[in-house]
Parts: sequence; C-alpha cells; structure tokens
Amino acid sequence: RVSRSAVVNAATQQSPAGLGFNSHKPVSDVPDSLCRPDDGNADTQMRQKFERMCRAAQNKICAAIEEIDGTKFREDAWTRDGGGGGITRVLAGGNVFEKAGCSLSVVYGSMPAEALASATERGADRAKGIKPGERVPFFACGLSSVMHPRNPMAPTMHFNYRYFETDGGVWWFGGGTDITPAYLFEEDMRHFHGTYKEVCDKHDPDFYRKFKQWADEYFMIKHRGETRGLGGIFFDDLNDRPAEDIFKFSTECANAVVDAYVPIVAKRKDMEFTDEQKRWQQLRRGRYVEFNLVYDRGTIFGLKTGGRIESILMSLPETTRFEYDHHPVAGTPEAKIMDCFKKPRTWV
Amino acid sequence: RVSRSAVVNAATQQSPAGLGFNSHKPVSDVPDSLCRPDDGNADTQMRQKFERMCRAAQNKICAAIEEIDGTKFREDAWTRDGGGGGITRVLAGGNVFEKAGCSLSVVYGSMPAEALASATERGADRAKGIKPGERVPFFACGLSSVMHPRNPMAPTMHFNYRYFETDGGVWWFGGGTDITPAYLFEEDMRHFHGTYKEVCDKHDPDFYRKFKQWADEYFMIKHRGETRGLGGIFFDDLNDRPAEDIFKFSTECANAVVDAYVPIVAKRKDMEFTDEQKRWQQLRRGRYVEFNLVYDRGTIFGLKTGGRIESILMSLPETTRFEYDHHPVAGTPEAKIMDCFKKPRTWV
Repeated sequence: RVSRSAVVNAATQQSPAGLGFNSHKPVSDVPDSLCRPDDGNADTQMRQKFERMCRAAQNKICAAIEEIDGTKFREDAWTRDGGGGGITRVLAGGNVFEKAGCSLSVVYGSMPAEALASATERGADRAKGIKPGERVPFFACGLSSVMHPRNPMAPTMHFNYRYFETDGGVWWFGGGTDITPAYLFEEDMRHFHGTYKEVCDKHDPDFYRKFKQWADEYFMIKHRGETRGLGGIFFDDLNDRPAEDIFKFSTECANAVVDAYVPIVAKRKDMEFTDEQKRWQQLRRGRYVEFNLVYDRGTIFGLKTGGRIESILMSLPETTRFEYDHHPVAGTPEAKIMDCFKKPRTWV
Repeated sequence: RVSRSAVVNAATQQSPAGLGFNSHKPVSDVPDSLCRPDDGNADTQMRQKFERMCRAAQNKICAAIEEIDGTKFREDAWTRDGGGGGITRVLAGGNVFEKAGCSLSVVYGSMPAEALASATERGADRAKGIKPGERVPFFACGLSSVMHPRNPMAPTMHFNYRYFETDGGVWWFGGGTDITPAYLFEEDMRHFHGTYKEVCDKHDPDFYRKFKQWADEYFMIKHRGETRGLGGIFFDDLNDRPAEDIFKFSTECANAVVDAYVPIVAKRKDMEFTDEQKRWQQLRRGRYVEFNLVYDRGTIFGLKTGGRIESILMSLPETTRFEYDHHPVAGTPEAKIMDCFKKPRTWV
C-alpha cells in the first residue's frame, strides 16, 4: 500500500502511472474507439466491447437526464499520449439538477505493484507474481456518474461500472449504483433497491444480498461511523466466473440506472421545501465530499494514475455546508434518516 | 507508510493509536492541565509548558477575534481515557466570520512505527530504532486554528503549533501560519509575511526564507498544481537546536497571529462585494476542502489517531462551491491571484 501523499510528484506533475496530469489533449471529434487499435484481437476484445457498452449507456442515461431536466449536457472529450482518453459530460445549473456528471474514461498506464494492490478490495491477489517495485502495465475502462438534484427531497445517485486488465492477463470487473437521499421516502428506497435486486437475481441468487452489504460497508464514512447514503449495490474484483457473464451483468446494471433513478426524481423534483431542508441537504453533501476525498477508491485511483482532474472531481456537489458538531433533533425527519446512516437497513 | 483507508477500523471504531473515536468525555470544568500529572518532571516538563503556552495563545487569539466580530466563541472541552483531552472553540454565524475555530489538543497514544513515519516530513528519522510493526507511545500537544471571514476581500487564516515527544525521548516541534485570500491585496501580503519575517529573523536569519518556501511546497494542491493560498511559514520536525530555543520561537509565532492577521480583517471586513465575488470565494473554499481532506498532515494525523472528529474538521469552511472546469477570465482579479497560486511569489 502507498500513502496518498506519495502518489503524485508535484514538481514534475507526473503520476506513478507514468502519465502527467497535463497529458490530456482535447478533441472535437471523438474517435469511434478510445482503445488502442490493436486491442481488437481475441485476447483483448473485452477492452473495446466494454468501451462500446459504456458509451451506449452514457448516451442512454444522459438522454434521460436531459429530458427530465430540459437542459443539455456539455461534452468534453480528450485523448491521451500512449492511448486512451475519455468523454466527460456535465450538466450544471439545470432546472432539476444542480450538477450532474457522467464520464467515460479509457486508461492505459502502469502502476507500481503496491498501487495496483491498493486499487482493489482484495488487491493482494491481483498483484500476485509481481515483485515489489515492479511496474504493472494495465488497461482500465469505466463509466462513472454522480447526479445531484436541486430539490432536497430528490436523492443524489452515483454509479460506476469498470473493467480492468493487466498486460499479464489478470482481469476483473467492478461497479455499483447507490443512492443518497437527504430525506427518507421508504417507497423510493424499495423501488431503487428492488430494481437492482431484480437485475442481480437474474444472474446469481446471492448477488443482491452480497453486493448490498458490500455497498453498506464500502460507502461508510469511517471517521463518523455513518454511511454516505442509503446504499445500493457495490462489487469489486469480480472474476469468479466467465468474463462474458460478468460483462452481461455489468451491462444490465448500467442499463438499469434510468429505471432505478429517474422515476424517483420525477416524483420528488417539484416538491415544496424550506430553507432549513435545503441546508440539511447541503450538510449531507458536505459528508458526500468527506467520503469522496478521503475514502473513494475511484477518486484515489484517478489521482494516482494522473487522471483528468476535472473529470474525477465532477462528482463533488456544487454547493455544500460544513457545520461544527451538527446533530439533528430527535424525532425529526433528519434524525430518522440519520438512524439509517448509522445502522444500514434492509429495503427489499 | 500506511494508506488512509487502513488507518481506521470502522467496525470497532478504534484507531491504531488505541484510542476510539468515542473515547472523548465532555467536561464542564476544564482541568488546569490536560497532561498526565506525572508529566511535570525534568524529563517531560516541555509537555506541560507547551500546553500552557497553547492555552494562553488560544485565550489571546480568541479574545481578539471576539472583539472584532462582536460574537462569542462556543467552547467544548473534553478529556480522554488514558490521559489528554482538548478545548475546542468555534464561532459560527458571526458578524465578521462565517466560521472560526481554534482548538487545543493533548494526545497520548501509540502508533505503529509506519504511522509515526508518515506523520512527519522526514519521518524515517523519527522512527529510527523502532522495528516495523512495533508500537511507539507518543505525546502530542498542539493548537490549531482556521478563520473563515464572510467578506470575500478578507482572507482566511490558518495556524498550527505543535510539540511531539515519543516515550523514547525523541522530540520535535512543528507549525506555521498561512494566509488564503480570494482576492489579492499586495499590501496585506506584505504585512502578513513581513510580520512573520520579523519573528523569524530574531531567531535565525535563514528561518523565513526556509519556512516560507516550505509553506509554498506544503500547501500545494498537488493534483491541481496550485497552492491553497498565498503561504506564510511552515516547519516540521524541528529539533536541530535546544528545545528551549524552538519553544521560544513557537511561542512568538503563535503570539504573532493577532498582529499578522487581525489588522487585515479590520481593513477588509466592510468592503463592498458582488455575488460573483462571493462565488469566487466559495470556489476557493472548495479548493481549501480539497487540500485539507486529501493532503493536510494534521487532518490525516487526527483521523489516524482517533481524534475528536468535530475538532479536526472544524477547519472546513461553512459554505463551498465545486464547479466543473472553472477558469477565471484572463486579466480579471481572479486570474491575477490564480497566477500567484500557480507560481508562488516573494512578498517581502
């Protein structure tokens, strides 16, 4: 494991992945694939396939968000020296959304064995056979998104689906979708979790129970002993069955985002709310920032590998509050949802 | 070095220092000393002496801030199992300050040798003679403060002065005061840096040059290649001369806070400003949060040692903004100060 302060060399603006933070070239015409052209052969076909899946999901999800918001996403695409690139879409100052981002990235890099280990949940296995100090060339492709609505009754949603492959042929999938309301509407949580349970159940009767628990553990703000939100599903290092099966599962998870989330936003976006309720939402968004900057594996991985900073940090909410020693008053809706953050519940 | 996610065990709420996040007991009467009673002997006299200095400085600085604000600090004091405790003062929703905090803490704990190493700048030296995996009992006392004014023309100020001692008799001092304006007033920077240069020059002709540069390097937001603010002084691991001399230097630095900072606030607090200027201030406060949660050694140390979370995170500004891909327009005051963040300047 490496410390976060050790991962980036400020003087040279170089990350241990050998890529610089300044190595992103904006492009106006996005190439059909951001993968290297020789990644289409039998051994590496999952690379292009996963990218195609992510791009289709990005189009579908952004179209649904644009429709409900009435505002268009801004798009920034870039390529990188050495292969790879990305497409970031951000909708800021929308009618429904304060800030919504959805970003595709394709990364070719190399990491010290220790960094590879810390990039995954059970990382030791992934770096097996690699000597300490040795660099491991890798490929990574992922689609990441965070949507922060204006209305405090409408929850924030995050998802990420990703595929990793080292040049040594070790591969795994990771991902998940999770929801972060400021106020609890049990029917919304049943809908959200129920949608993902249905997707999970089609693939493995154990997936939902396992990945729901994983989300509750992963999205824990450890220094506060409370979760960021009300969970969903989360998995990492998944390679215990044929890649094709996990690819199908990931695809269906990504495609379930619209059904799981947009009906909830539609139901909550025009509800009345007070300044006090907006303030509570912003306080919870402060906690969102605490989680993302201190614990989130994707954020840390992005900083470690010289990712495009604006794309990594698009996840941060537009407005937040940090108040000293804030505690909701017992018996209020704020206290009710705080109980759920302190002790994760079962929704379906 | 240890990773940040490894430092806290969420299940037990125990930190590697052997102290729990829940081990703080509020007290209404603050004892005369938060040090263990047997810390007054010849070997450990600096412990109580440094605490007394911090408490006097806390009183002096808070009184000056209360006077200019017209509002009182709230005080929370606590003790901890196994010795130590703290006094946190926070002024929120003031007339001049959005949020101002000043916190004393006295910590007895033990850290894995690796954590001790990562708690300091040139940590390897401090853990010398300690086998990997071995725990090192330590004492730490420090006074920490961040003041965030409302008016975007008035800068944020941070200082921290601390003393560390391991039970093996290794000791060192650390600290610094730095300033974070959203708008550049060169005369203010000359006043602030000039005040600290004067204090430094009394002790060592090389101190200001060295510690000014150290601040410019330390307060770097590495993933952005820009500093958090416009620096000041910063030092760590200082033990190259008699403890008494460094104690005197630290005392004078802490006592210079009011002279260095309050006249600037007095001059700027009632200036007119626009919504756009407030927004820029909040954007810079978003960067402040990025630095503190990703890089700040005091914050990381606090999380590692099971510190009182509300005291550690009182440094975060009350309101912040995070905007995607924001760049100030060339030629504006925002662009002018951004140039200083990108390329630290000499002020005196």
